[in-house]
Amino acid sequence: MAEPSLARLSALFFGFLLLLATYSWVPRLHSGLLSGTGVQKTLGPDPKLRVDHSSAKPHHPLDPLTVQEIERVRTILLDHEPGFGSGSATIHSMALDEPDKTLVVKWKKGNRLPSRRAEVLALSVGQSHVIVVDLDSGRVVSDVVNPTSGYPILTMDDLIVASQVALKSIEFNRSVEARGVKLSDLVALPTFTGWFGPEEEGRRILKVQCFTSQDTPNYFMRPIEGLYATVDMDKLEVIKIVDKGMVPIPKAAGTEYRYNVQNKPVHMDRINPISIEQPEGPSFLVEDGHLVKWANWVFHVKADHRAGIIISQATVRDSETAGEPRSVMYKGFPSELFVPYMDPGELWYYKSYLDAGEIGDVSWRHSEILIPNADIRESRPKVTLVARMATSVGNYDYTFDWEFQTDGLIRVTVAASGMLMVKGTPYENVDDLGDKEDDSGPLISENVIGVVHDHFITFHLDMDIDGPMNNSFVKVKKYVAKTEKDAQIKLSLYDPYEFHIVNPNRKSRLGNPAGYRIIPGGNAVSLLDHDDPPQIRGAFSNNQIWVTRYNRSEQFAGGVLVYQSHGDDTLQVWSDRDRSIENNDIVVWYTLGFHHIPCQEDYPVMPTVAASFELKPANFFESNPVIGVAPIFEKDLPVCRPFASS
Amino acid sequence: MAEPSLARLSALFFGFLLLLATYSWVPRLHSGLLSGTGVQKTLGPDPKLRVDHSSAKPHHPLDPLTVQEIERVRTILLDHEPGFGSGSATIHSMALDEPDKTLVVKWKKGNRLPSRRAEVLALSVGQSHVIVVDLDSGRVVSDVVNPTSGYPILTMDDLIVASQVALKSIEFNRSVEARGVKLSDLVALPTFTGWFGPEEEGRRILKVQCFTSQDTPNYFMRPIEGLYATVDMDKLEVIKIVDKGMVPIPKAAGTEYRYNVQNKPVHMDRINPISIEQPEGPSFLVEDGHLVKWANWVFHVKADHRAGIIISQATVRDSETAGEPRSVMYKGFPSELFVPYMDPGELWYYKSYLDAGEIGDVSWRHSEILIPNADIRESRPKVTLVARMATSVGNYDYTFDWEFQTDGLIRVTVAASGMLMVKGTPYENVDDLGDKEDDSGPLISENVIGVVHDHFITFHLDMDIDGPMNNSFVKVKKYVAKTEKDAQIKLSLYDPYEFHIVNPNRKSRLGNPAGYRIIPGGNAVSLLDHDDPPQIRGAFSNNQIWVTRYNRSEQFAGGVLVYQSHGDDTLQVWSDRDRSIENNDIVVWYTLGFHHIPCQEDYPVMPTVAASFELKPANFFESNPVIGVAPIFEKDLPVCRPFASS
Repeated sequence: MAEPSLARLSALFFGFLLLLATYSWVPRLHSGLLSGTGVQKTLGPDPKLRVDHSSAKPHHPLDPLTVQEIERVRTILLDHEPGFGSGSATIHSMALDEPDKTLVVKWKKGNRLPSRRAEVLALSVGQSHVIVVDLDSGRVVSDVVNPTSGYPILTMDDLIVASQVALKSIEFNRSVEARGVKLSDLVALPTFTGWFGPEEEGRRILKVQCFTSQDTPNYFMRPIEGLYATVDMDKLEVIKIVDKGMVPIPKAAGTEYRYNVQNKPVHMDRINPISIEQPEGPSFLVEDGHLVKWANWVFHVKADHRAGIIISQATVRDSETAGEPRSVMYKGFPSELFVPYMDPGELWYYKSYLDAGEIGDVSWRHSEILIPNADIRESRPKVTLVARMATSVGNYDYTFDWEFQTDGLIRVTVAASGMLMVKGTPYENVDDLGDKEDDSGPLISENVIGVVHDHFITFHLDMDIDGPMNNSFVKVKKYVAKTEKDAQIKLSLYDPYEFHIVNPNRKSRLGNPAGYRIIPGGNAVSLLDHDDPPQIRGAFSNNQIWVTRYNRSEQFAGGVLVYQSHGDDTLQVWSDRDRSIENNDIVVWYTLGFHHIPCQEDYPVMPTVAASFELKPANFFESNPVIGVAPIFEKDLPVCRPFASS
Repeated sequence: MAEPSLARLSALFFGFLLLLATYSWVPRLHSGLLSGTGVQKTLGPDPKLRVDHSSAKPHHPLDPLTVQEIERVRTILLDHEPGFGSGSATIHSMALDEPDKTLVVKWKKGNRLPSRRAEVLALSVGQSHVIVVDLDSGRVVSDVVNPTSGYPILTMDDLIVASQVALKSIEFNRSVEARGVKLSDLVALPTFTGWFGPEEEGRRILKVQCFTSQDTPNYFMRPIEGLYATVDMDKLEVIKIVDKGMVPIPKAAGTEYRYNVQNKPVHMDRINPISIEQPEGPSFLVEDGHLVKWANWVFHVKADHRAGIIISQATVRDSETAGEPRSVMYKGFPSELFVPYMDPGELWYYKSYLDAGEIGDVSWRHSEILIPNADIRESRPKVTLVARMATSVGNYDYTFDWEFQTDGLIRVTVAASGMLMVKGTPYENVDDLGDKEDDSGPLISENVIGVVHDHFITFHLDMDIDGPMNNSFVKVKKYVAKTEKDAQIKLSLYDPYEFHIVNPNRKSRLGNPAGYRIIPGGNAVSLLDHDDPPQIRGAFSNNQIWVTRYNRSEQFAGGVLVYQSHGDDTLQVWSDRDRSIENNDIVVWYTLGFHHIPCQEDYPVMPTVAASFELKPANFFESNPVIGVAPIFEKDLPVCRPFASS
């Protein structure tokens, strides 16, 4: 898979990001945190491949807001209380408010689009607003204030400003300098730590932690342990400075990761260049910027400021029924990310790429010797289409892959890379630690503890097998889940269940209901008590599989307003309503996890680790759907002559 | 990954297979089972790429027996009682009897090879013989009769003869014809069903089941249910014919899988040809036919009649210590395969290919925006080397991949494909079944039940972290397993352990012991009671991880003589000896499983399903070992111009 390439999908998304960049930036930023110029330089594809989106129009009901629509929403809000015009209210996020599912399902190309609406999360004098703006009529149609606990997703401004506030504090500066760190090397990183305790209720707080970038770009490996400031983001004041005393700052040597400054010999034979080639070009088409057509699949794909990548209306053509397009999944996206002891709500992609491409493997093979006089060696290629989003979220870098196979299988893979969040320590050797083990994690370099952590990503999978209604969730073959509490699933190797979403109204010729099966891959679970505050907020990670009744407002598994929320609007809360999920419109939630006890190989950067799950057709097709797909023939691959082996 | 390609590894193995073919065939075989000509035609690479092995010599202590050595063993045995010369004894298997580990570890290229020995499993008048022949002295050095219950692996002759015996039975023929099946369409398939019951003790039995190949090559989908014959392989007589009455034979329509006779339109846009290209050729070298050198890895690879593919002496070079080659794994191979309700001991590869190649992905990435005026977008390619063995074992086709990454990780993947073993039934629709469910499995086509089954493969992983001795098995960070019973591990998501093999005598600069971690992927477990006879024989699947003390005779987890064994020589038995495994020479066993409830998509052939696990360095290196590895640069990939997207 090529690195951020210049496919049209990328261009589309870069367009969106560029827009975001121009929309909300403080242009000149404090050194050590962000440079507006720096952001511009790191975003965007090669200038000659940029696409101008300024006059783009929506073509599909699910297409994201266009540049013009975003501008229009801003204009409409200028007249809306409380004071967007006066600047006392700020827009924290804006995205398409998707039309009702029934309208989207009925819509066909050529029809008028349903009304275009935007959902805006805003903040005004400490109050959260969830606002819907109707673009067709030009009016605000609803504005709900503080529907739940918590605040909207943070803006870039929030982060920048919080750091600036801390850095204006003389006491803070003194503490930094007392540690031998120059202010010009200081990186003040805002972090979210969710549950602050009663004295901080009712205020929007951020914790600012410090790192030094002296002699390295990898400041993450040079934490200034024991010093942080708590900042009120709205009053723009420092509430508290905590200085626990000096902890040695880990050295810069060995932290450099830029290839062009590496200077140690690598004892490894050269790996020759390798690429995946399609001499006749790729096999997928993208219509109107978002509709992807490949092999027997069609799906809508878009970037989203919160979800990253959303796949919608995935349908697959059935050769048994003359190519009838059949519904599989209405909407799928990573709904929430929980990295204990960090926060949910970190789905904040300020640097993301979309990429797509095809990869090749073997989908089926068989050789046969028991047939007289036959030379049977059959195989089918497995070429899959991958829609990948790569993103950097501070120290971590993630990729989210939605992989489509011609046999109807969808594989979702999350890979994590980047670098660890580490903690400084006085220790330089495990012998110094002796029996007194650091609770946070193991020593991975001198003075560096790799903090043990997990990553949980809960995916929202609105499965619509042969249609939105008439779906059920079945454990094994016969046990149909009736209500939501029946479908709070903790996976166990010793539970022999398979988990299927079926449409009992559509039966195969043999009488099996059409369905898809959820196949877990490697996984990990949260070990926090369900009552632990972070776990209450991250309650969507209590189970690996959940099934809820479709409800358009139930999208983000940690709630709409996640920041400093109390966990009153999570997937656990919705599921506990115990609604009927039999023969209905249901949504599956799958939680994928990685448990990570760091080791020295994760220093100074972490190699990619990946986990995945699959959605596989089970009695959806009448028989194996790819038996008629052509093998790859030598004559089709004339381009490169193999180099003779030595 | 290309289909059976023409790498030198393949050529080597084909050479071995061709030898096997000439060695033991009955040239003219009954129609409907095997044709000697058919076998010849399906084996072997393109004639112009064949390698002549007739004068090959061994170069490494672990190199498999050469053509000349095999001939020599046969000659030596001609004079050995009981009667190999007279034909009353038959050779069931022959392979290198590997030299003692200490000799192999000490050996260096240029030294004399340790004595070459062959281990022969033979049968003579119903007695099993485990014979060791010393090639240097030209003598039989040991012959142990019936060391345990069970018989040696079956030969092609056994299978052919058993079928012939059944087909000579008039009663049997009548039953076949009574079902409307022509004898010329009959495929008589020998199957192994392990536990026969007391009346069959002391005899070598085979069960012959019938299928019809009328109008299709996919006879597996046309079982003649309810009829089988039990045959005594040594007396060459039918013991019993079971005819439970007629069950409809599933139709031929829809079973064809050969691409060139497919006639239904496939509603799918064309997928353009795709290949993985290395314009400068592959990066691996193979020395002396078996020693693979790639990037920072060296390992010995060979085909084995029983294990399929064996990886030995895998070492990785450490750039921190000037390229010092460090031992990781002494020997790794799939030790036993258990497919309840089928037998262990089915590791009988009569059609296997070895293949190797490189594949590309991303090993690490990071983008950084918080550094002023920097444009940081770093990534490292992940090009891995895969040694793959593809094999057909009757209806199933497996691939076993050993994948090596430059960061020291080894990934083992097993993929299953081919077609299901099915059962005939009168039913054509699930409604006909009603509440009365077929215990064997679900309906996947008219009159076809897909039998529910599992596949368990236990891998033998003789980990030698920085040397053979001084290894320990650690759960989490501090709990070191002392004896074998401490290391009988049932995986559970709710057990937060990590599992490491460490060398406590080799510590990193921080004091962490050098180690490798076992990372499970998706898995499944056997649901049979531990007391169930098949589970006693397949007891190696009771746990997902085991660790035993190195013992050269403990290689095959179901025992040496698996056929009709009683489970007296399995991994469970060895592990229950509870030997000390702390700071010693230890072996890890990993059981990987797939649970398969068939569905219509598995008919008439099964798409590939795969499962894997990883062996990942943990404090083995001082820090991330690939940070100095070059990214892939555009200029290195000049060969193919991308086709412009439409």
